[in-house]
Amino acid sequence: MIISMKLRSSKQEIEEVCQRIRDFGYKIHEIHGEERVVIAAVGVGDVTPCLDALEMMPQVDNAVRISAPYKFVSKEFRKEKTRIRVKGCEIGGDDFIMMAGPCSVESETQIMESAEAVASAGGKVLRGGAFKPRTSPYDFQGLELEGLKLLRKAGESTGLAVITEVMSDRDVELVAEYADILQIGARNMQNFALLKSLGKANRPVMLKRGLSSTIKELLMSAEYVVAHGNNDVMLCERGIRTFETITRNTCDIVAVPVLQEMTHLPVVLDPSHATGKRSLVPALTRAGVAIGADAVILETHPCPEKAWSDGAQSLTLGAFKTLMKELRPYIELWKERRYAESPVAV
Amino acid sequence: MIISMKLRSSKQEIEEVCQRIRDFGYKIHEIHGEERVVIAAVGVGDVTPCLDALEMMPQVDNAVRISAPYKFVSKEFRKEKTRIRVKGCEIGGDDFIMMAGPCSVESETQIMESAEAVASAGGKVLRGGAFKPRTSPYDFQGLELEGLKLLRKAGESTGLAVITEVMSDRDVELVAEYADILQIGARNMQNFALLKSLGKANRPVMLKRGLSSTIKELLMSAEYVVAHGNNDVMLCERGIRTFETITRNTCDIVAVPVLQEMTHLPVVLDPSHATGKRSLVPALTRAGVAIGADAVILETHPCPEKAWSDGAQSLTLGAFKTLMKELRPYIELWKERRYAESPVAV
Amino acid sequence: MIISMKLRSSKQEIEEVCQRIRDFGYKIHEIHGEERVVIAAVGVGDVTPCLDALEMMPQVDNAVRISAPYKFVSKEFRKEKTRIRVKGCEIGGDDFIMMAGPCSVESETQIMESAEAVASAGGKVLRGGAFKPRTSPYDFQGLELEGLKLLRKAGESTGLAVITEVMSDRDVELVAEYADILQIGARNMQNFALLKSLGKANRPVMLKRGLSSTIKELLMSAEYVVAHGNNDVMLCERGIRTFETITRNTCDIVAVPVLQEMTHLPVVLDPSHATGKRSLVPALTRAGVAIGADAVILETHPCPEKAWSDGAQSLTLGAFKTLMKELRPYIELWKERRYAESPVAV
Amino acid sequence: MIISMKLRSSKQEIEEVCQRIRDFGYKIHEIHGEERVVIAAVGVGDVTPCLDALEMMPQVDNAVRISAPYKFVSKEFRKEKTRIRVKGCEIGGDDFIMMAGPCSVESETQIMESAEAVASAGGKVLRGGAFKPRTSPYDFQGLELEGLKLLRKAGESTGLAVITEVMSDRDVELVAEYADILQIGARNMQNFALLKSLGKANRPVMLKRGLSSTIKELLMSAEYVVAHGNNDVMLCERGIRTFETITRNTCDIVAVPVLQEMTHLPVVLDPSHATGKRSLVPALTRAGVAIGADAVILETHPCPEKAWSDGAQSLTLGAFKTLMKELRPYIELWKERRYAESPVAV
Repeated sequence: MIISMKLRSSKQEIEEVCQRIRDFGYKIHEIHGEERVVIAAVGVGDVTPCLDALEMMPQVDNAVRISAPYKFVSKEFRKEKTRIRVKGCEIGGDDFIMMAGPCSVESETQIMESAEAVASAGGKVLRGGAFKPRTSPYDFQGLELEGLKLLRKAGESTGLAVITEVMSDRDVELVAEYADILQIGARNMQNFALLKSLGKANRPVMLKRGLSSTIKELLMSAEYVVAHGNNDVMLCERGIRTFETITRNTCDIVAVPVLQEMTHLPVVLDPSHATGKRSLVPALTRAGVAIGADAVILETHPCPEKAWSDGAQSLTLGAFKTLMKELRPYIELWKERRYAESPVAV
Repeated sequence: MIISMKLRSSKQEIEEVCQRIRDFGYKIHEIHGEERVVIAAVGVGDVTPCLDALEMMPQVDNAVRISAPYKFVSKEFRKEKTRIRVKGCEIGGDDFIMMAGPCSVESETQIMESAEAVASAGGKVLRGGAFKPRTSPYDFQGLELEGLKLLRKAGESTGLAVITEVMSDRDVELVAEYADILQIGARNMQNFALLKSLGKANRPVMLKRGLSSTIKELLMSAEYVVAHGNNDVMLCERGIRTFETITRNTCDIVAVPVLQEMTHLPVVLDPSHATGKRSLVPALTRAGVAIGADAVILETHPCPEKAWSDGAQSLTLGAFKTLMKELRPYIELWKERRYAESPVAV
Repeated sequence: MIISMKLRSSKQEIEEVCQRIRDFGYKIHEIHGEERVVIAAVGVGDVTPCLDALEMMPQVDNAVRISAPYKFVSKEFRKEKTRIRVKGCEIGGDDFIMMAGPCSVESETQIMESAEAVASAGGKVLRGGAFKPRTSPYDFQGLELEGLKLLRKAGESTGLAVITEVMSDRDVELVAEYADILQIGARNMQNFALLKSLGKANRPVMLKRGLSSTIKELLMSAEYVVAHGNNDVMLCERGIRTFETITRNTCDIVAVPVLQEMTHLPVVLDPSHATGKRSLVPALTRAGVAIGADAVILETHPCPEKAWSDGAQSLTLGAFKTLMKELRPYIELWKERRYAESPVAV
Repeated sequence: MIISMKLRSSKQEIEEVCQRIRDFGYKIHEIHGEERVVIAAVGVGDVTPCLDALEMMPQVDNAVRISAPYKFVSKEFRKEKTRIRVKGCEIGGDDFIMMAGPCSVESETQIMESAEAVASAGGKVLRGGAFKPRTSPYDFQGLELEGLKLLRKAGESTGLAVITEVMSDRDVELVAEYADILQIGARNMQNFALLKSLGKANRPVMLKRGLSSTIKELLMSAEYVVAHGNNDVMLCERGIRTFETITRNTCDIVAVPVLQEMTHLPVVLDPSHATGKRSLVPALTRAGVAIGADAVILETHPCPEKAWSDGAQSLTLGAFKTLMKELRPYIELWKERRYAESPVAV
């Protein structure tokens, strides 16, 4: 911590602050500047309570944290990228991974048709919602258990891994029985009861960034899962909320390389939710591959205009196939860069 | 719904759109403007799926909703203010209500001392956290059951009603046993599993606005609780997240009169979380009374610099007492206005 | 400045950073923490270039500024409030000041009628736009010189001071001939050519906060004006842009006490632009007086529904009169608090 | 316009609203829904004043605009992309254009060295600031006229076109004498006096998006320039201001395809200001090419750690060269897509 005293603080005022810091068990370094005194405090453990206490003292101008408040997820803790293996594929590994499927599981035909289209176009993971978080209580809330069963069936018949959302700590065990990856939605990124329960879930987790969550808060939420016992966490940028309303959200695409500088966890981009508009999805997907995301997750639907949710941002199965073809040279470039950066290549 | 066609749409394109709307069961009115054709669609039921479908059609320029997507919480549904009775007091009634207490319940001494200070200064509701939502897994997470018991004891001995946070649908029953009002924190405002479970909770609910939630989304979340069977919901403005970082959050104080125009539910202001800084709390509390909030909720602590959480924004018990005294003339003006506005007065 | 090194930096890496800091003329204090080395650098002058240079060095984790980048406008530079005298009144003094008038000057009748209503209700300053910043090139752009002349006439006949906007450094001299206070609009808060030209303008300046400007940036813009020779600057909170669209802007009302903690310059609140909606203006004005703003500026119009701009947020002259009456007890309380806080009272 | 009446409006209330609309010269269509009456109003001309007036009427629930408020810049007005020719190159044409150079012109050596590096790596336009908008009055404000002369010299000796910022309508003529493209900075995007003066400038304009400006406002500002006589406008996404502070701004990269759907004007991406951090620039530049920006503008410097401004986000000349090489296959893919989309190819 660095504590900056008010201008013209007296000796006694400075000593009071120093004593307060020592009470928390930290060591003191006083620095006498031209204008004011600055105190550096060093030691171990979470500094939040001490910072809070200091900010209340009238003599203190401000107090700032130096160390990051997360540990296990940081690159300083672990340099090599976390590789998450599910069914045949590896997220965070040597291949770019495409995940796709409908917003909601609606029927057996719909999910089977979707799964086949994903698999045949080269996707590796099938998405589909069984429990749906909806802003309105009057909107379709998902097929729940029936949806989970259909998803697993579709996954088994195509060889795709399956990712689906879990909305309550109460449902973690149930969903983990059917799904290969547990998705935590943006609105639950700081549902701490849920995060804790994922620590014991025995399934990889994809944590979506909250609408107004900072990158540091996303890492703190991942730290919850890891600290409770589950190392297999991937992070997903899906757009944040800003003043711009022309798109559903604002895609903070730079979060991808920022996260890759800060953490060893894989990073996924979700162009469907980030834009909310089908016509914008292919361009943003190309950009996501070019910027180096480990995976992309897309909404597709056999008949988007009849989808029970998120139709406007879903690609038709045909458009998805076309996009996958268009992506090929970008994925080749992605692999060249991944290879060039990998420690083996050095 | 109002659907605006692209410029120079052909007759056939317009007919395709009209047919799509009729498929959803709505009636059509075509309006031929100087520049483009606009279609008005009327009917009953949630228009979201139809809107989504139309926005995908290439001939459509845009499609907008006319009716609000919530119903029970709207002022159009019910004109008179909802009055929520708990213990001796009424939120949304003829008296301004002050709620106060520590961020976290820490010990019997701390909560008893706090409760006595709140009661003797004229507060009606005691706040205190037993389950704490914390950004970091390494921060203090609350005394849980023990905290609930201490809270109830403090409430009983002082006659104050007790409000405390519940973080998971798993805990609703337990918390409802001990608390008079269930608080839903900002980060759980769209935890839909939790919202649904509150419908059956048999306790009034205070729903805090999410950090990046619009006023309409706050009303939609309240609609979840009401639609699942619980009419006693109060809404709380506690600051939103913006680009400004000098305060912990940005207090959208105008949300108070905006909500009072839109809904019959009582509205509470939380100056402690809105500012994050003790020195700013009294000024914002005065403003909250002046703008007409039904209640204010504050963080107080016998010894803020030793608080386990949120010390920097907690008032000392002495400062709270001073503030309550300073508020008196503002509360008198509040009552005069409330009386002047009430239907009885007319 | 405080420079935090990466974990496990070598001695040589630390020395390189120290040398770089010394090159900029600062003195070094090394602090060896449990986990990392932190360097404190002290000295005089603007640290921005040094900070920028350090942030680029790969060994550096982050580098933060300790001193505020502004000086003349800070409370540390000058403790007593700046009182700005114009015609009979004083902004920042012992009286709460109301400024009001139409968005745009439209005609002699309109501005004379407005001025008389403002004066007779107890307002002290007449507002009115002659040069109008409009988002669309097709909207009314103001009466320009003719508007200035009408404003002066209305000011002279009623004894009110006159405030009007200046949009270009080219027009400062002209506007200063006719107006008592020069208003800088939110969209020009960082029009640095304009700010510099105000230094020599010989008229007080009201600087409106930009839609996405931080409080610190507002102070920096004020510092421009003061550093170029003009001490009479007042600051105006008029709402910022956030994700919430139900009001025209989001009023950051807490900016008022925050600014009063940081600067000696008077602070004005603009409820009309902050809300964009007439029905919300009285409540927010009450809150503005209660929170301690030095002045409030309002839009009023003899016939808002025929106003050439901003009609939806303008009060009728009758509503303005009613509001002024309703404010009286709040203004009494304002004066009591001002008196209690003033050094004379101690 | 679509005007939605309050629930249970009386016949007379509806007629009053209709009459008000007719007063503005629009035609009326009444639509009687199950719950409420909606009025569609059609006609020509700017609807803003009418909308404002209607929103004030107590019977009106809300009133929304249907047509876009801009015209000349819209794709509906002109389908083919505007191609802006400067010196040998064409922005908005068949080639991807790279613009690069230092934040500020500092000396002849610095700008000449920069220009040669840009030209030899395949850049087409040299950037460099002579008039610098700086948040602090104490920061370096640019070499002004001397900077313009050095820029022109560097442009002439290398064959590069030159782009530089103009900050006041007073300086437009002067800057136009020396520069090939006039840049309008983010903070001046709504400096309407400046925008108007560009209409007569006889030089192409690059308009940067304001920190909190919507895409529609950016188009409205472009409309100012075009409506005042200058068709050669390109738009630049350079990051917007959000709650996320880990990067200098948040790059709204999706603005690129959104703008390309809405306007025929070319779109430029500025990864340097969008990120504020050198290490993130190459990844975002790749993404910018992949998403289909017409051009990218970058900050480069012979010695970034000694730059007088923006050093932390400037690439070294070596890093720029490496990046240009790395971009080649992405630019090839860009050309293939441009060719496939061009009307000639069909």
